Amino acid sequence: MASLKRLLVGSPIRTARLAHERLTKKTALAIFASDALSSTAYATEQILLVLTAAYLAGQASAFGRVVPISIAISLLLVVVTISYRQTIFAYPSGGGAFIVAKDNLGTLAGLVAGASLLVDYILTVSVSIAAGVEAITSAMVGTRFAGLHEHRIWLCLFFIAFITVANLRGVREAGALFAAPSYAFIFSFLCLIGYGLIRYYLNPGLAVAPNDADLKIAEGYHPQSLHLFLLLGAFANGCAALTGIEAISNGIQAFKQPESKNAATTLSWMALLLITMFVGASVLAYFFNVHPREHETVISQIARVVFTGHLTWFYYAVQATTAAILVLAANTSFAGFPRLASLLARDRFLPRQLANLGDRLVFSNGIIILAVLSGVLVWAFSGDTSRLIPLYAVGVFLSFTLSQAGMVVHWWREGKALRAMRVAAANSASAAENPSSMAAPAGRLSGSFEVRRLSDQQPGSLAEVARLERTSHWRKSLVINGIGAIATCVVLIVFVATKFIHGAWVVVVLIPLLVLMFLKIHRHYVQVAHQLSTEGLGQLRPIHHQVIVPISGIHRGVIAALEYAKSIAPHHVTAVYVNLDDEVTRKLREKWQQWGSGVNLVVVASPYRSLARPLLNYVDRMKRSAPNEVITIVLPEFVPAKWWQNLLHNQNTLFLKGALLFKKGVVVTNVPYHLEH
Amino acid sequence: MASLKRLLVGSPIRTARLAHERLTKKTALAIFASDALSSTAYATEQILLVLTAAYLAGQASAFGRVVPISIAISLLLVVVTISYRQTIFAYPSGGGAFIVAKDNLGTLAGLVAGASLLVDYILTVSVSIAAGVEAITSAMVGTRFAGLHEHRIWLCLFFIAFITVANLRGVREAGALFAAPSYAFIFSFLCLIGYGLIRYYLNPGLAVAPNDADLKIAEGYHPQSLHLFLLLGAFANGCAALTGIEAISNGIQAFKQPESKNAATTLSWMALLLITMFVGASVLAYFFNVHPREHETVISQIARVVFTGHLTWFYYAVQATTAAILVLAANTSFAGFPRLASLLARDRFLPRQLANLGDRLVFSNGIIILAVLSGVLVWAFSGDTSRLIPLYAVGVFLSFTLSQAGMVVHWWREGKALRAMRVAAANSASAAENPSSMAAPAGRLSGSFEVRRLSDQQPGSLAEVARLERTSHWRKSLVINGIGAIATCVVLIVFVATKFIHGAWVVVVLIPLLVLMFLKIHRHYVQVAHQLSTEGLGQLRPIHHQVIVPISGIHRGVIAALEYAKSIAPHHVTAVYVNLDDEVTRKLREKWQQWGSGVNLVVVASPYRSLARPLLNYVDRMKRSAPNEVITIVLPEFVPAKWWQNLLHNQNTLFLKGALLFKKGVVVTNVPYHLEH
Repeated sequence: MASLKRLLVGSPIRTARLAHERLTKKTALAIFASDALSSTAYATEQILLVLTAAYLAGQASAFGRVVPISIAISLLLVVVTISYRQTIFAYPSGGGAFIVAKDNLGTLAGLVAGASLLVDYILTVSVSIAAGVEAITSAMVGTRFAGLHEHRIWLCLFFIAFITVANLRGVREAGALFAAPSYAFIFSFLCLIGYGLIRYYLNPGLAVAPNDADLKIAEGYHPQSLHLFLLLGAFANGCAALTGIEAISNGIQAFKQPESKNAATTLSWMALLLITMFVGASVLAYFFNVHPREHETVISQIARVVFTGHLTWFYYAVQATTAAILVLAANTSFAGFPRLASLLARDRFLPRQLANLGDRLVFSNGIIILAVLSGVLVWAFSGDTSRLIPLYAVGVFLSFTLSQAGMVVHWWREGKALRAMRVAAANSASAAENPSSMAAPAGRLSGSFEVRRLSDQQPGSLAEVARLERTSHWRKSLVINGIGAIATCVVLIVFVATKFIHGAWVVVVLIPLLVLMFLKIHRHYVQVAHQLSTEGLGQLRPIHHQVIVPISGIHRGVIAALEYAKSIAPHHVTAVYVNLDDEVTRKLREKWQQWGSGVNLVVVASPYRSLARPLLNYVDRMKRSAPNEVITIVLPEFVPAKWWQNLLHNQNTLFLKGALLFKKGVVVTNVPYHLEH
Repeated sequence: MASLKRLLVGSPIRTARLAHERLTKKTALAIFASDALSSTAYATEQILLVLTAAYLAGQASAFGRVVPISIAISLLLVVVTISYRQTIFAYPSGGGAFIVAKDNLGTLAGLVAGASLLVDYILTVSVSIAAGVEAITSAMVGTRFAGLHEHRIWLCLFFIAFITVANLRGVREAGALFAAPSYAFIFSFLCLIGYGLIRYYLNPGLAVAPNDADLKIAEGYHPQSLHLFLLLGAFANGCAALTGIEAISNGIQAFKQPESKNAATTLSWMALLLITMFVGASVLAYFFNVHPREHETVISQIARVVFTGHLTWFYYAVQATTAAILVLAANTSFAGFPRLASLLARDRFLPRQLANLGDRLVFSNGIIILAVLSGVLVWAFSGDTSRLIPLYAVGVFLSFTLSQAGMVVHWWREGKALRAMRVAAANSASAAENPSSMAAPAGRLSGSFEVRRLSDQQPGSLAEVARLERTSHWRKSLVINGIGAIATCVVLIVFVATKFIHGAWVVVVLIPLLVLMFLKIHRHYVQVAHQLSTEGLGQLRPIHHQVIVPISGIHRGVIAALEYAKSIAPHHVTAVYVNLDDEVTRKLREKWQQWGSGVNLVVVASPYRSLARPLLNYVDRMKRSAPNEVITIVLPEFVPAKWWQNLLHNQNTLFLKGALLFKKGVVVTNVPYHLEH
């Protein structure tokens, strides 16, 4: 086992290497942006799937709405991007929604954001992997591998396992593995859009042959006319394109220095690419009259029309890179989920095992939990992207909203801090002869990084405060983040309203439950720390002993246990034997004359053939008769030479240990006897 | 958990009640014969399934061969029954194939028979349950529950669980539960045959409408002409009717006294019923032109023709009782499997846990293992009887052959013993004046019960020996069992030859593997007994101690552990701390001044952030420096108040315990610290 782990995961890495595991902008774009960019592979299709409802109700032009809806989503994306750039500069040490909400809105808001993000990371893995596998099975339509569609769940699980192993190897190696496919996808997708527009310009009649045979409709929708609620549903579905935007602000510390600047630049590039690719795909889908189908994705249909016949190999290149980016997009979560879980664990809201770096300097436990949960989701929803989408965006937009609202509070406090500094500077200037009034502004300031840094040191001069007020732009920032908060909150409401019965309710129920779990775990750790506190204790106290050795006969294992028992409490040892057969017991008593060495032998009856029950009763009786003494149970235990031999021994010992664990004042000691063959 | 167990299984029963749990002939017929009788529900169909191959090759009359084949199988059944009657009288304490083969042919033959029987018991459960569920889904054909066929695996698993619980409640209660359905089945099946024959006589044109649409063919067969090999294949398939015959001879001790006579009478009745029902069903299938079909059993088709229209409710009665008897037939194995497993376990060929009676006086472990394995088989073969049949009869006929061959040796030895007694009696008569020559015949005699009983007492008179020779009939018995052995051996060869590639190979491979496992387990237990023997040991020896307390900080749990450690070895305690953070370690050292009470504190480094590895290395170093001392590791362990809190603690302790278990001369002591909330 140990060597298999080493082969897959690599050798352990020393703690001292931690600081060097940082990413360049190019590698970071490949890792953090793969989620957001890859959503272009399914976002257009998710809009069309809802519009199908109107198309089936007889409105042939319904699919045309995909372009304005895509543009509306892109505008929302611009707002969110600008908002997040501000967060990145204000929180250079990592400003995920959890931290921003906790700092500015309080612990509960932070936990809600944390729960949303955890759910979201899991769904990102499931949706991305499912969509990636759909890209592969789409390419097989019309070939003799068309049956691959039936095995998509196994393909999904295989890819999840693959990424898990890659991530357990460590973050930089993972980045190197993923850079090439990410850039190949961006290149081939931009080629698809550019070449597709040229072909449409040269040959406006080019389109997919109309065929309503296997038309697909979004989960939970039925044919209906094109009213506002349907358009909002299509808009909400398309918002899946925005997922993954926040990953960069969570992981600023993974960038090379200067972290904030590099992260913000990467974020802007990502948004620009995302809008180009997403709107481009929607426009092409409209031009080429593409409808969503059961066995082939929309992107695959577009690429088929554009390339088939004269550049067929490039069609396969598009599908291959799309599949690659989608499968690897899941990697965003494999970076983000364990990092967030460790933040929560350090604050004692999750089990402490999640806080520790594994021997490859990655949070191994978090990676494994993410892999298992996303695998279960893929399996439960049969690896069908359109069934997972209704669960997806609730968590995303909830954390967006909390994060932006937190930033609004943040800028408001910065404004307050600046005012306080101005007052302090004015005081210090007017009363320079009275040093006692030169105290710093009251309380810990919660302004921008620079404001906090300066205010901690000394009350600045009036000129310095004026310079800070000029560069701070807190009013402008407050407005920008305010717009972001309102926009994402509106989308959140639209999403929950349109998708609640289609699956969003699962997440709406799950997030409060997760928050409750966080609080319960936290309360437990706090209580334990309180109970374990050494406050009020004096010196170590002496202990009074009784030792019990349960025996199953007289053999070398029992003799080793008796020898041990006599060594720890020479005059307080009792051997206990359970009588299952009078004749056997009589012989044992005889043999005891020779081997007992003066140890007291107690035989207890067992009318129901149980071994454990009479022993436990005996321990209870002894405990009652000497409540202040510690009772040590010395258990002889066989250690077989081969693992399977354990099945042939020790079941009684095991059961006894489990039952004794819950008795106060009882200590269990295992004296092993090592068997040789 | 405990109360759920009590609700399902009932209260424990005292050992003293063991002798009273015996069965009357009527109850025993219901329990032991249900397997054999219920096979009439599928045996005819299994023959027809093979004949389909010839029918599809154009030989329209092929299905007519079902009657002669059924008669041939019935003749074989008569031979086997007569053979087994002899076994029952020769082995009144229980003469299963395992015991007979072991006594007369040696341990290895006994183990082969034992392995065959175990495999066979598992398959009996799987086949019976699958066929029972097929009876139910057949009755649903043409109703709105026709889709039940798709859920047959879950139905199978439900029924297995039901019988498991019934058997865990104890053998007599299980008998009471099963008597009514068994007799209802016999009654309704005999009515079906009788009324069917009458209707055919009154209306010879009555038949199933010809329809080749969903004709079914046996697993692995293809259309081919009717040659000898195909006929042998059909015969081999039909031999599934013989399974279960041996159950009575295995369980003689469950009968009321006189056990042998009651058991033999029950066996004869069972055989008579079996032949009547099996041949009757085959004749009706021929008369009514019934062909095997995908969604309906042959018996269901016969009953539909006979009863539909004027006695439709009796059709449903036939199907219901058939389903009931089949589901309950599995009960034969739930009586036989655990009993055989306990015999093997007492001889140390299986883990000793299988030898013990549970608290309801049944072999609980064996029952649970049987339930799990048969459930897995049903699941693996999708609950399809015809796919399980090729695996079925290998084990049955292998154990038949070994058992009969063992009886041949048995009678041969009885003949030898009688000759020896005649010589002894002649000597004692001719040399009455010389008492020293009156010794009993040499060695332990292995003759019939009566011969053994008498020969143990005294050398009888010549007249007495002559009476014994008249009543013994050992020559006749030898011939009968010889014919049985040859007949079953021939069928075994036919079966393996015709079914090997269709699945029988699985069992042919499995049985030797099981025998190997038996031998390996036996060798292990013998070696352990040898290693544990107290031979050569003197008095208890004194032990020299070193105690190590691994600590994670200073809190009440650690202080309890230190107090305990000082009490067992006041001057030899070392506390060990793993340094993960220099600053934290420095603070600990300071605190140690107050709390250490003179205990030596050792800090070890951990460059790879592991807690266990540096500790284990420290233990190894100490072990090397003092190889003759016992090292006790005192581990502080939290006992949370609620089970889920275990997830938040103790992982390091658990891992450490596992690793320490395999070090010689190291004793692990857990000092529990009970948390309160």
